[in-house]
Amino acid sequence: APAGTRGISLFLVPKFLVNADGSLGARNDIGASGIEHKLGMHASPTCTMVMGDAGGAIGYLVGEENRGMACMFTMMNQARLGVGIEGVGIAERAYQQALAYAQDRKQGRAPGTKSDTSDAIIVHPDVKRMLLQMRSMTAAARSICYATAVAIDVSERAENAEIQGKATARAALLTPIAKAFSTDIGNEVASLGVQVHGGMGFIEETGAAQHFRDARITSIYEGTNGIQSIDLVTRKLGANGGESVWSLLEELSGIVDRVEASNDPAFRTTGIRLRDALDSLGRASRWLLEKLGSAPNDALAGATPYLRLFGSTLGGCMLANEALAAKDQVDDDKRYITLARFFAENVTVQSSSLERTVIDGADAVNGADAILLA
Amino acid sequence: APAGTRGISLFLVPKFLVNADGSLGARNDIGASGIEHKLGMHASPTCTMVMGDAGGAIGYLVGEENRGMACMFTMMNQARLGVGIEGVGIAERAYQQALAYAQDRKQGRAPGTKSDTSDAIIVHPDVKRMLLQMRSMTAAARSICYATAVAIDVSERAENAEIQGKATARAALLTPIAKAFSTDIGNEVASLGVQVHGGMGFIEETGAAQHFRDARITSIYEGTNGIQSIDLVTRKLGANGGESVWSLLEELSGIVDRVEASNDPAFRTTGIRLRDALDSLGRASRWLLEKLGSAPNDALAGATPYLRLFGSTLGGCMLANEALAAKDQVDDDKRYITLARFFAENVTVQSSSLERTVIDGADAVNGADAILLA
Repeated sequence: APAGTRGISLFLVPKFLVNADGSLGARNDIGASGIEHKLGMHASPTCTMVMGDAGGAIGYLVGEENRGMACMFTMMNQARLGVGIEGVGIAERAYQQALAYAQDRKQGRAPGTKSDTSDAIIVHPDVKRMLLQMRSMTAAARSICYATAVAIDVSERAENAEIQGKATARAALLTPIAKAFSTDIGNEVASLGVQVHGGMGFIEETGAAQHFRDARITSIYEGTNGIQSIDLVTRKLGANGGESVWSLLEELSGIVDRVEASNDPAFRTTGIRLRDALDSLGRASRWLLEKLGSAPNDALAGATPYLRLFGSTLGGCMLANEALAAKDQVDDDKRYITLARFFAENVTVQSSSLERTVIDGADAVNGADAILLA
Repeated sequence: APAGTRGISLFLVPKFLVNADGSLGARNDIGASGIEHKLGMHASPTCTMVMGDAGGAIGYLVGEENRGMACMFTMMNQARLGVGIEGVGIAERAYQQALAYAQDRKQGRAPGTKSDTSDAIIVHPDVKRMLLQMRSMTAAARSICYATAVAIDVSERAENAEIQGKATARAALLTPIAKAFSTDIGNEVASLGVQVHGGMGFIEETGAAQHFRDARITSIYEGTNGIQSIDLVTRKLGANGGESVWSLLEELSGIVDRVEASNDPAFRTTGIRLRDALDSLGRASRWLLEKLGSAPNDALAGATPYLRLFGSTLGGCMLANEALAAKDQVDDDKRYITLARFFAENVTVQSSSLERTVIDGADAVNGADAILLA
């Protein structure tokens, strides 16, 4: 076989062989050894598989010889959105648990009151902030994952070739963001869930710590979030002169137009933050595109903050879009508006800083050896 | 005893009683039960203590009756800086381990090369970024903790009453920042340490996960970081019309003057970021001071982003101050300058966003019930 990844083939190696008549045959020469002690995901054991201790295992080639890496990427590409949803799922569970605890746990009194009895901790602005942060980040990640799923569906089912082509490009663009941004959020939300529980959060019995432990792998497997960021910058932004980014930015700008036109005072800062973020994302994208050609290491140095900038902007626009829909369609639209507003004021607001980090940061990153290897 | 915390007294309850002649006496009626299963800190068991199962334990009053809460705060105040240093210590260990791994672990090739053999992952800009983030955040937290320790020393030893008074105010101001900012950083750095290790980081044997688990308690105990933020805003900023904040800002401005005057091109963005951050911190401080009187819940809603803004600005100035000293005194000043620059471009740069979050964010936070309780 060729050297390296070009010589990898995929085999199915069953635990039991199958007799010619279809009945269960002999035990195959394969077994698990060395089950790993992992930080989390304890319901999904990871272990070394040992083959050939008793003469040799029988395996069946799947697909073509030397095409194992390509087969693996079929799984990997599917799994990326799946892992993003895993981040959303852990975040949602962590939020629900923290919300219930904050309504139950009594400690201190509401600011400015002097009651003899304690209040539930949810009365404290800092606890409200943590819960809103959890809820709004989870909602933003969920929206991005759903938009990715829609793009994949359309790319597979559309009968119009142009629509299909655009959806394929959209799905390709959104997948690394859905994976990395949602799993970063899964980790952040699970950590806030521990924090809302205070000291009890550190006790495994409470359950908050398990989300924190489980979530940690999602930023790593199926391509680390650093790899997703590099994929976003080099392959997705880099394709067709950034065409799929420009067309998405145009759509998002339409949402922000409607936020601005709504003249709802509760939307005022939301509109400002989203417009600023779109401008930052546009400038950072153009800068990276130019560097991809002239100084690729400078583009690579900014990949991670660029993905965060993209997710913060996209998530903010999607929550605003949901709030606009709620204003038209439901009575209790206030919660959608507050959620969009909180996300814009607390997460999307970081876009201008992230733009500066992308554009200014490459020199220090690529000069890091002076420190790291000193 | 009075109700609530005013009726708490502190007792010493020994495991063994002492006979009149000083020899070891009978076993006291106290024992541990229910050792907790904790996320981390497994070398420090936490358990329920049971007294009186066999007739009653003998305890000795420490200090005055009903003054137990005050005694506890003697420990707590000391512990806050200690826990901040704990954050720094875990971060430093996580960094050293990640740096060693990144130099050892081979995967992929340096961007733009086509060698037959793999390179160590430290060649990748995204890995350099993670390591610099770890190192610069650790260095900033360490500087803040040291400055706090200096202020405490001067407050205890200075013979001049004015110097002593200023040092006391400085120590009081810096303590919640040293505790909360350093432990937040401990968590962030430990998490990056796992990330640098990739899948191996999720395996307990590697050791990276232990730092991640251990660090998690430091944001919680000896007053959660939310409590530190509230202390910073209400008691420390709120004292004497913000006097201790204004005098610190003036000192920091002197550092930034020298950064700007250095005319070193590597310092250019550092000076811009630090000046912007000082302006943001000043505006946010004035806004909070005004709200403390007129709308305390609005001030409380911004406490956590305010502490982050404070730490990011202070840490950035202190690293720049170290770089200025290095320029005067050592040959390899480049690593100090790069470290200060990276922190300014990646962490301090968030100050303007944090200012906006403090000032704009209160409405959404205090209107959270529309979402949380819907």
